[in-house]
Amino acid sequence: MEEALAVDILISEVGPRDGLQSVKSVMPTEQKKRWISALAEAGLTEIEVGSFVSPRALPQMADCAEVVAHGLTIPGLQVAVLVPNLKYAQMAFEAGAHQISIPVSVSEPHLISNIRKNHQEIIADVREIVKLRNERYPGVEIEAGLATAFGCTIQGVVPEDDVIRMGAIMADCDVDTINLADTVGVGNPAQIKRLFPRLRAEVGDKCGGAHLHNTRGQGLANALAALEVGVTTFDSSLGGIGGCPYAPGATGNIVTEDLVFLLEAMGLKTGVNIDKLLDARKVLAQGLPAETLYGYLPDAGLPKGFVPATLQ
Amino acid sequence: MEEALAVDILISEVGPRDGLQSVKSVMPTEQKKRWISALAEAGLTEIEVGSFVSPRALPQMADCAEVVAHGLTIPGLQVAVLVPNLKYAQMAFEAGAHQISIPVSVSEPHLISNIRKNHQEIIADVREIVKLRNERYPGVEIEAGLATAFGCTIQGVVPEDDVIRMGAIMADCDVDTINLADTVGVGNPAQIKRLFPRLRAEVGDKCGGAHLHNTRGQGLANALAALEVGVTTFDSSLGGIGGCPYAPGATGNIVTEDLVFLLEAMGLKTGVNIDKLLDARKVLAQGLPAETLYGYLPDAGLPKGFVPATLQ
Repeated sequence: MEEALAVDILISEVGPRDGLQSVKSVMPTEQKKRWISALAEAGLTEIEVGSFVSPRALPQMADCAEVVAHGLTIPGLQVAVLVPNLKYAQMAFEAGAHQISIPVSVSEPHLISNIRKNHQEIIADVREIVKLRNERYPGVEIEAGLATAFGCTIQGVVPEDDVIRMGAIMADCDVDTINLADTVGVGNPAQIKRLFPRLRAEVGDKCGGAHLHNTRGQGLANALAALEVGVTTFDSSLGGIGGCPYAPGATGNIVTEDLVFLLEAMGLKTGVNIDKLLDARKVLAQGLPAETLYGYLPDAGLPKGFVPATLQ
Repeated sequence: MEEALAVDILISEVGPRDGLQSVKSVMPTEQKKRWISALAEAGLTEIEVGSFVSPRALPQMADCAEVVAHGLTIPGLQVAVLVPNLKYAQMAFEAGAHQISIPVSVSEPHLISNIRKNHQEIIADVREIVKLRNERYPGVEIEAGLATAFGCTIQGVVPEDDVIRMGAIMADCDVDTINLADTVGVGNPAQIKRLFPRLRAEVGDKCGGAHLHNTRGQGLANALAALEVGVTTFDSSLGGIGGCPYAPGATGNIVTEDLVFLLEAMGLKTGVNIDKLLDARKVLAQGLPAETLYGYLPDAGLPKGFVPATLQ
C-alpha cells in the first residue's frame, strides 16, 4: 500500500464491519460502497469493510465479497475483513482481502458465546489459517484481536496474565499482528498502560493496535493512555456506531470524528481530512436513517482558529 | 472541613451552579436542596451550589442565598459559589459560603461578553474581594478560575503565555487557588500537559484544579492528561448538565458519573459511592424533567466484578 502522506497514527475504520454488524438496520450494498468510498476519500487508508460469517447469523454481512471487491477498486486502500474460522478465512482470501482479523477472546465463555469455539479450537484454527496464508496467499496480513482483553460481561474480570499468555500463543501461531480489544468497554487507562507494554515485551513488533469501545464513556481517555505507551494504530467507527449487545443503550466503538480531532489537536497527523470525514458521516446517516449516530465534534464543530496537524 | 475518608482526588461538583445556570429550566429551590443533599450523601464533599449574580440575568440563581444556607446545614460539606464582582462577593460572604470562585477569562472579549468587565477592571475587583475577605471573612477560600484558558469561541486561540501571565497576576492578588478552565471545550491533552506544569512553576501551590467541558468529547481524555501532570481536583457536573451557550447541541461539563468511574477504575479513591451517585442522578432528573442528562456509566452500569477503589 502506498500512502500519499506520512502519518503519525493509523486510524483503522471499522464502522462498515463492527458498526454495521451490531446495528439492527441492514445497509444496502450500494450504500455501503458509497460510504466506504467516502471514508477513503476522507483519507482513511485502512477500512474493515465487513465480516465473512454465516449470512443467517448476520444478514448485514451477506454481501461481504461484493463489498471487498469494491474496496479493492479504491487505490491505496488496505481492505480488511473479520473472519471467525478457517472456512470463512478461505472465503476472505479468495475475495482478495488484504488483511484478515480473527477475534480471539481471552475470556473463554465469551469466545464460546461469540463464535462457538473454545480456546483449543480457535488456536487450532488460527494455525490452519496462517498455514493456508503461507502456502497460497502470502501477501495477506493476519491479525489476532484479543477480545475481552480488559474484562468481559460474562466472565467478569479477565486476568492480565491470561491476556499475555494468549498473546504469546498467537505469536507462536505466527500471526502478524496482535491487537488488544476492549470489546465491551470496561477498560481503564491504568490497565491500558500495563497491558500494551507487557504484550510488547512478550511478542515484540507483533504487538498491534487498540480496539476500544466507548460503552462507559472512557474511550478517548483509554486511547490517550494507549498513545502514551506507544500504540500507533487505533480502530474506531464513524458515528461511533456499533453498540454492544450486552449493554443496551450504550454506544459502540470510539467515534472516528472525535478521535481524529483528539489526535490532530495534539499535533499528530492522521492523514484524515475532517471536513471530508463529516461528509462521509452524511453518507452514513443516509444509509442508516433509523440509527443514532454518536460523536461530539460533528455537533460542536472545530474550534475557532483550529488547524489540524495533517494540514500543517 | 473534616473528611471521613482520605481521598486521592477531590471532585468538586458544579452541577447546581454551572449546570443549572446553563439550562433553560429553572429548578425549584426545594428540589435544588434535595439534589444537593443527595450529592453530599453520595460522598461529594465540595459542591458549587450556585452563583450570586443578577437575578434578571440568571433567574435560575435568584435563590442562591437560601441554597447556600441549606448547604451549610450539611456536615462536612464545603459550600462554594461563583461571583462575578465585589458586590456579589459581599453577598456570598454574608451568606456564609466557604469558598468563592471568580471567573477571570484570559480572553478579554470573552470576559467582556460574560461579565462586562475588561482585564483591568476584573483584576481591581479581585484585589478588593481579597482585601474584604482578609479584613472581615478570613476563613473563606478565594479561587480564580482562568476561563477560556485553552481557547475561546470569540477570540479563537488563547496564547499560553497569556494564561500564565494572568495566573501570575491572580497569585499577586493573593487568591488562594488558580484553576484552569476549558470553558468552551476546545482543549486537548497536549495543551493540558503543558499548561498545568507551567502554571505550577509560576504560582506554586496556588495552582489548583481542572474545570473541563466535554463539548467536543475530549473531557475525560483531558482529565486523564491533567491527572498525569499532578492535578488532584476536578470540577464536574452530574449528568454533564451545563451545555455551552456558544455551541448549540453540545454538552457541558464533564460528567461526574463517568469521571468517578474513570478514577475509581484506575485505583484512585474519590470517596464517592457510585450507587448513591446514581440515586442523586434520579433526584436531578426529577428536578429537570425537560432536560437531557448525559453520561455513559448510568446506561451501561458498572462492569461485572468491578470494585471501586474507594471500597477497597
